[in-house]
Amino acid sequence: MSRRDGRANDEPRGLELSPGFHRLAEGSCLARAGGTVVLCTASIDESVPKFLEGKGVGWLTAEYQMHPRANPQRREARDGRGKAPSGRTQEIQRLIGRALRAAFDLDALGARTLAVDCDVLEADGGTRTTSVTGGFVAAALAVAKLTRDGRLDRPVIRDQVAAISVGHVRGELMLDLAYDEDSGARVDLNLVATRLGSIVEVQGTAEGVAVPRADVDRMIDLGLQGVSLLAARQAEALAGAGVALDALVVPRA
Amino acid sequence: MSRRDGRANDEPRGLELSPGFHRLAEGSCLARAGGTVVLCTASIDESVPKFLEGKGVGWLTAEYQMHPRANPQRREARDGRGKAPSGRTQEIQRLIGRALRAAFDLDALGARTLAVDCDVLEADGGTRTTSVTGGFVAAALAVAKLTRDGRLDRPVIRDQVAAISVGHVRGELMLDLAYDEDSGARVDLNLVATRLGSIVEVQGTAEGVAVPRADVDRMIDLGLQGVSLLAARQAEALAGAGVALDALVVPRA
Amino acid sequence: MSRRDGRANDEPRGLELSPGFHRLAEGSCLARAGGTVVLCTASIDESVPKFLEGKGVGWLTAEYQMHPRANPQRREARDGRGKAPSGRTQEIQRLIGRALRAAFDLDALGARTLAVDCDVLEADGGTRTTSVTGGFVAAALAVAKLTRDGRLDRPVIRDQVAAISVGHVRGELMLDLAYDEDSGARVDLNLVATRLGSIVEVQGTAEGVAVPRADVDRMIDLGLQGVSLLAARQAEALAGAGVALDALVVPRA
Amino acid sequence: MSRRDGRANDEPRGLELSPGFHRLAEGSCLARAGGTVVLCTASIDESVPKFLEGKGVGWLTAEYQMHPRANPQRREARDGRGKAPSGRTQEIQRLIGRALRAAFDLDALGARTLAVDCDVLEADGGTRTTSVTGGFVAAALAVAKLTRDGRLDRPVIRDQVAAISVGHVRGELMLDLAYDEDSGARVDLNLVATRLGSIVEVQGTAEGVAVPRADVDRMIDLGLQGVSLLAARQAEALAGAGVALDALVVPRA
Amino acid sequence: MSRRDGRANDEPRGLELSPGFHRLAEGSCLARAGGTVVLCTASIDESVPKFLEGKGVGWLTAEYQMHPRANPQRREARDGRGKAPSGRTQEIQRLIGRALRAAFDLDALGARTLAVDCDVLEADGGTRTTSVTGGFVAAALAVAKLTRDGRLDRPVIRDQVAAISVGHVRGELMLDLAYDEDSGARVDLNLVATRLGSIVEVQGTAEGVAVPRADVDRMIDLGLQGVSLLAARQAEALAGAGVALDALVVPRA
Amino acid sequence: MSRRDGRANDEPRGLELSPGFHRLAEGSCLARAGGTVVLCTASIDESVPKFLEGKGVGWLTAEYQMHPRANPQRREARDGRGKAPSGRTQEIQRLIGRALRAAFDLDALGARTLAVDCDVLEADGGTRTTSVTGGFVAAALAVAKLTRDGRLDRPVIRDQVAAISVGHVRGELMLDLAYDEDSGARVDLNLVATRLGSIVEVQGTAEGVAVPRADVDRMIDLGLQGVSLLAARQAEALAGAGVALDALVVPRA
Repeated sequence: MSRRDGRANDEPRGLELSPGFHRLAEGSCLARAGGTVVLCTASIDESVPKFLEGKGVGWLTAEYQMHPRANPQRREARDGRGKAPSGRTQEIQRLIGRALRAAFDLDALGARTLAVDCDVLEADGGTRTTSVTGGFVAAALAVAKLTRDGRLDRPVIRDQVAAISVGHVRGELMLDLAYDEDSGARVDLNLVATRLGSIVEVQGTAEGVAVPRADVDRMIDLGLQGVSLLAARQAEALAGAGVALDALVVPRA
Repeated sequence: MSRRDGRANDEPRGLELSPGFHRLAEGSCLARAGGTVVLCTASIDESVPKFLEGKGVGWLTAEYQMHPRANPQRREARDGRGKAPSGRTQEIQRLIGRALRAAFDLDALGARTLAVDCDVLEADGGTRTTSVTGGFVAAALAVAKLTRDGRLDRPVIRDQVAAISVGHVRGELMLDLAYDEDSGARVDLNLVATRLGSIVEVQGTAEGVAVPRADVDRMIDLGLQGVSLLAARQAEALAGAGVALDALVVPRA
Repeated sequence: MSRRDGRANDEPRGLELSPGFHRLAEGSCLARAGGTVVLCTASIDESVPKFLEGKGVGWLTAEYQMHPRANPQRREARDGRGKAPSGRTQEIQRLIGRALRAAFDLDALGARTLAVDCDVLEADGGTRTTSVTGGFVAAALAVAKLTRDGRLDRPVIRDQVAAISVGHVRGELMLDLAYDEDSGARVDLNLVATRLGSIVEVQGTAEGVAVPRADVDRMIDLGLQGVSLLAARQAEALAGAGVALDALVVPRA
Repeated sequence: MSRRDGRANDEPRGLELSPGFHRLAEGSCLARAGGTVVLCTASIDESVPKFLEGKGVGWLTAEYQMHPRANPQRREARDGRGKAPSGRTQEIQRLIGRALRAAFDLDALGARTLAVDCDVLEADGGTRTTSVTGGFVAAALAVAKLTRDGRLDRPVIRDQVAAISVGHVRGELMLDLAYDEDSGARVDLNLVATRLGSIVEVQGTAEGVAVPRADVDRMIDLGLQGVSLLAARQAEALAGAGVALDALVVPRA
Repeated sequence: MSRRDGRANDEPRGLELSPGFHRLAEGSCLARAGGTVVLCTASIDESVPKFLEGKGVGWLTAEYQMHPRANPQRREARDGRGKAPSGRTQEIQRLIGRALRAAFDLDALGARTLAVDCDVLEADGGTRTTSVTGGFVAAALAVAKLTRDGRLDRPVIRDQVAAISVGHVRGELMLDLAYDEDSGARVDLNLVATRLGSIVEVQGTAEGVAVPRADVDRMIDLGLQGVSLLAARQAEALAGAGVALDALVVPRA
Repeated sequence: MSRRDGRANDEPRGLELSPGFHRLAEGSCLARAGGTVVLCTASIDESVPKFLEGKGVGWLTAEYQMHPRANPQRREARDGRGKAPSGRTQEIQRLIGRALRAAFDLDALGARTLAVDCDVLEADGGTRTTSVTGGFVAAALAVAKLTRDGRLDRPVIRDQVAAISVGHVRGELMLDLAYDEDSGARVDLNLVATRLGSIVEVQGTAEGVAVPRADVDRMIDLGLQGVSLLAARQAEALAGAGVALDALVVPRA
C-alpha cells in the first residue's frame, strides 16, 4: 500500500521550521509539516501564576487555537469565541504545556513564565504534534534570548523534545499521519519524546476495537524513531538562527 | 517501602460495586475504590446526536462531574456551574466516553444513545479509572435491560472494559494510586484495557523528567495485570445483579 | 379518593435519613422521602463571605443541584453547566439557605461558614422540602462535630427546622405531595417550620385560580402537623448518630 | 411609633398609575408607589412558547429588571448584562409571571403571548409588589386593545390582581414597606390577591427567628385589606384610560 | 419630496428635554425627539477606574441599553441579558462616552467618575444622537450639583456638546432621520459637535456605493447647523432647571 | 518635526502584500504595513445568513482578531476567548465588513457568503485600515477564483477599496500613523475610500478637545491621497498573482 504523498510508512512529512517569523515574540517559529502550518510564539512574562508566587520557580503554559479557515471548509464560529474553547482544544493545549514543561528546568528559569501560543493556520493532521515540535523551537529561542541578555545564571533546557503521531491504518503502521490517514486509523498514538529516546508522554487510543499489547509496542518503537528525525531538524533550525542547543542544555549528571 | 494502606505495590484497592444504587436509571452502579466513590448511571435515550442521524447506529457519551465536597476542602464553586467545565473535567469525560465506546458494538445498539454519568462523590485518586470501571457495569446493566425488553436483536457488548492507574513513585512501580501517591509520582499512567489484555487506551505522562522506554513497558505490564483483577470484580457484581456477561457478549470470530 | 401509594391524605411519605453517608463532609445525610433521594452535605469553612468579614459572625449558604438522571428521562444538559443555573434552581437554593439560617444562631457560630450542598439524586416531588429536612440533619452533625472539637463556646442550634409540602388536589388537601400529585394540584404550599410549630417560611401559590383565605389556613394547619412528624424523625436519626439535639440547642429565654 | 413618611401602619403608600406612558407597547403603565417607580409594558406576540404550540392556548410571561441607578448608589454592572440575571431577579420575575397568569384566562386569550416587562427605574422597597400591581394595569390595557380590535371572542380577565407587602417591624405590623422599613423587618410577607380577597400567592419569610402562626394570620389579614385599596386605584386608572374593567372580566359561574 | 412628518429637509425633530425626571440620579433628563425616547441619568461615583487610580483625574463612562419594547415588535431577549451586549450596543455606548468626554474637563472633575446611562425606552431613529444630546444635559446637571455642593474648585464643562444625524435619502439631504428615513438612506452620517461648530466626532457610512467627497462636505454643513439648534434647546432646558450653562463653562483662553 | 521612521508627513508606510500566503482559503493575503502584520483570508460559503435566505443575493462578513502576542507585551487572555470579543474588536470588525461590502456587488455575487478573516499577528497602529486594504486583496482573489471556475455570470467587484488613517499630531497632519503617533494624536481619522476618491466611510474622533471644521477637511484630503497610493499597491499585488482587476470590475454606467 502506498501513501497519498508517496512517503514510506516510516517516513515523516517534510518539516520546515522558520525561526523568528513573528518579530515581537521573544522566540517564534513558523512550523510547516506537510499541509499543516502552525505559528508558534514564545513570550516571556516576568511573573508567575498565583500557585507559584513566592517560590522562586518558573512556569510554562501553552495555548492552542485553530484559525477558522484551518480546514477545507471555514468553521462558522471561531473556537472559543464568546464561549469556552472546545474540549478538544483544551485537551490539546494541556498536552502541549505538559510536553514542553518536560523540556525545561523550571527551577533554573526563575520566577518568570514562558507562554507558548500555537496558532494552527492550516490543518492537515498532526496539529498537536507539530505544535509541540515547533513550540520547542520557539521556547528555546526565548530561552536563548534570556541567556544572551544575561538574565539566566544556569542552563534551563533539560532535554530536546519533539512529538509525532503513529497510526495503525488498514493493517499497516504509519508514521506522522496526514488528516485522511488519521481519520481512517484503527489506532492513533501520539508520542512526545526526547532526542535520545526517553518518553515524555504517550497517548494511544483504539477506535472501536482494542489492540494487542504487541501492536502498541511496535507503534512506540516507530514513534521514537520519528522523534529522533524531527529533533535533528529542530537542532538545524536553531543552529541556523545562531543558537547552539548544546550550550544551552543542562549537563547530565 | 510500604504503602499507607498496607497494600502490596501490585495490589489494587478494594473495589465495591453496588449495581442498581440509582433506581431511575436503566443501569447504575455505585463504585467505591478505597476512598474514591463514584455514582455511575447509564441512561438510554431513543435518539442519536445530529452527526449520526439516519445512519441506524448508536452512540455512547459520558459526563464526569466532581461533587463540590469530593475533596478534603469544599470547592467554593461547583466545576462548570455558570461557566464551562474545567479542561481537566472535559479531558476526563472524553476519555471515559472513548473507553466505554470500545466496549460496545454501537452498530448493534441501534439508533439510540447510552449516556453514562459519572458523579464523583468522594475523591482519593483514580476517579477517572473508577469511572470507567463502574461506568462499564452501569452501561452493561442498561444493555441487559434492553435485551430483557426484547429491544436488541443481537449482542451489543464487544469486550469487558476496565481501567486502572500505575505510577512510578519514589523509585517503585505501584498499582492503583491513592491521591497522595499520585501527587508524588514521577510518572503517571492510566490504562484502559479488556479483560483479556488488549489495550483500549494508554495515557502516560512523565512529570518533569522523561522516562526510559523500559519503564513504560513495565508500567503497562502491571496495569494489564490490575485490569484483569478489576474485570473479575465487574463480572461478579453483574452476576450478583442477575446479569451473566457471557450471554451478552458478541461471540468472537 | 385514595393516593397512589396508599397513604392517608395527612400522612407524609416514609422518610429515611442516613447520617454520615458522605465520609469527607463534616456532616452529611442521605435523605430518602418516597421516591425522592437527596444527598445533603454540610461543609465547614473557616472564613466568611466578604459582606461579613470582620464582624465576627458566621454564615450558612446552600446549593441545590439536580442530577441529570433525577427524572424519568435524563435531562440532556446538566442544569447550570456552562451557563447559569435555572431560575428554579436558584429560587430553591435561596429558600433552603434562608430556611436553614433560621435554625442556627450565626452569631454563636463565629466567623465561619456552613455550606450545605443538596444534590437531588432521584426526584419524585418535594425535593426542596426534603433538602431542608435532610440539610438540617447534615448541618446539625457538622455543628456537633465543631462542639466535640471544642471549637464552639455556646450552643448554635436555635431551632429544629423541617419542611413539607401541602396541596389542594382534586378537591382534597394532601400532605407531602409526590410528583404526580403536585403537578395536578390547584394550590401548592411549601412550609418550613420549627418542631414546635413556629413558621420560618410559607410559600403558597394558586395555579390558575385564586383560593379562598380559609383554604390557605387549613393548608398551613396540615403542614405544621407534618413538620412535627418529620422533626421527630430528624431527632431519631441524629440520636442514632450519637448526637443528642437537646444538648446542642440554645436554651429558650 | 410613627413611620418616616407619616403613614399609619395600615396605610399603603400613595400609588400613581399612569396608563399609556409607553407609546409603542399594546398596554403600559408607569407605576409610582412612594419612592418606587416601575415602568410596566405589556406586549402582544402572536405566537406561544414551544411547550404550548398547537394547543390553542395563550401564555403570559414577565421580565423584571433594575435600572443601574434605581438605588441611591449606581450599581457598577447592570444586573444580567453579560451574565445571567441574579437569583433575586429571576425569583422576582417568576413571581410576577405566576401572579399575572392567575389574573387572565389563558384559554380565552388564544394562541398568543402577553409579555410584561417591569423595569424598576427607582427603588424604595416593594418593587415586586408594585410590578404586579402596575403590570396588571398594563396587561389589562393590552387585553382591552385586543377586545377593541375584535381579536378576542370572550372575556379574558378572570380576576383583578394586585400585590402588597406586610412587615413585622420593631414589634408592629406595617403595610407596604419602604426600603428602610423592609430591611429592619423581622418578618416580611408579600401577598398577591384578588380584589375580593382570594389569595394568588403568599410568601412569608422570617429573618432569623421563626414566628408564631398567629402573627402570620394577622399579616395576611392586613395584606388583603391593602390589596383591596390598591385594586380600587387600578380600576380608577383603567377607567381614566377608557377601560371599564367590569366589561372585560369573565362572569362568575 | 416631503417627509412623513411634514418637516423641512433641514429641520430637526421636536426635542423635549425633561431635566430631573429620575429623582435619584445626580443629574437626569428624559429626552424625546419625535418618536424616540431616551432616559438619561448621570451618576457620580467618588472613585475612578483602575487605569486612572492615583492620577487625580476623573472619568466619564456611558452605557446604552434598548428597552425590549423600544421597537414596534418586542425583542424576544433583552440585549445583553445573559450574554454580551450586541456589537451595535457596544459601538454606540463607546461613541456616547467619547462624545461626552469631549464636553468635560476631566482634570477639573477630580478623581471621580460620571456614569451616564442612556436607556432607550422608545426608538424611532437617532437613538445614539438623542443619547448624546440628552446625556449632556444629565451630566451637566450632575456637575451643577457638584458645584452647588462646593465639591469642585473650577469649571468642568469645556464645551456644550450635542449630536444629530444627516442622511442622503432618495437624492436629497435630510437632517435628523426618523427610522424609516434612516433605513432608506444611501449615506448615513452622525455628527457630534459643539454649539459653536467644532467637531467632536464624525461618522459617515455609505451603504453600498461610495459617495463623492462633495456630498460628505454638504452633510457635515447641514449637521453643524442642526447641532446648533439642539444646543439652544439644551441651554433652555438647563436654564429651566435653574442651571446657567455660562457660569459652569471653562472660560476660553 | 520628523517621524520616527523618517517618513514625510504625507507618506504612507511601506506596504507589502503577499497574495496566497494561506493555501486553503479561496483568497488570502499577508499584509505588512510597517510593523503591522495582518493575515487576511477570504472564504467562500455557498449559503447566506438567515435574513437573506431566498433572496438570491450574497453577503460579505468580516472577523477581526488580535493574536495574543500582537503587542510588545503578551495579553494574558486571548480577546474573546471564553467571553465576548471586546467592544473595540466588534466595532472594528463591523467597520471592515461595511467597508468591504461597499467594494462588491452582492447581488451579482449570488446566494453565497464571502467571509473575510483578519488576524492581526503583529500590531503597530493601523490594524483596522491594514485589514481593510489587505482584506480587499483576499476577497478579490476569492472572486477571481469564482470567475475562473465559471461560477459567476457577471462582474462582482464594484470598486477597489482601501483604507488609511490620518492624525493631527503635535500640530501637524500625518498620514498612516504608527502606534506611538496614534496614541499622541489630538484627532484620529480613519478613511475608507475608492481608488478614484469616493468615500465609503469616514470616522474622525477628537480626543479631548473638539476640532475646527477646516482641520477635518484637510485630514480627508490627505487621507484620499493616501488611499490612492495604497490602491496602486493592491492592483500591483493582484496583477502579480495573475489577476487583472480591470477585467473583474463592474463597468460604470
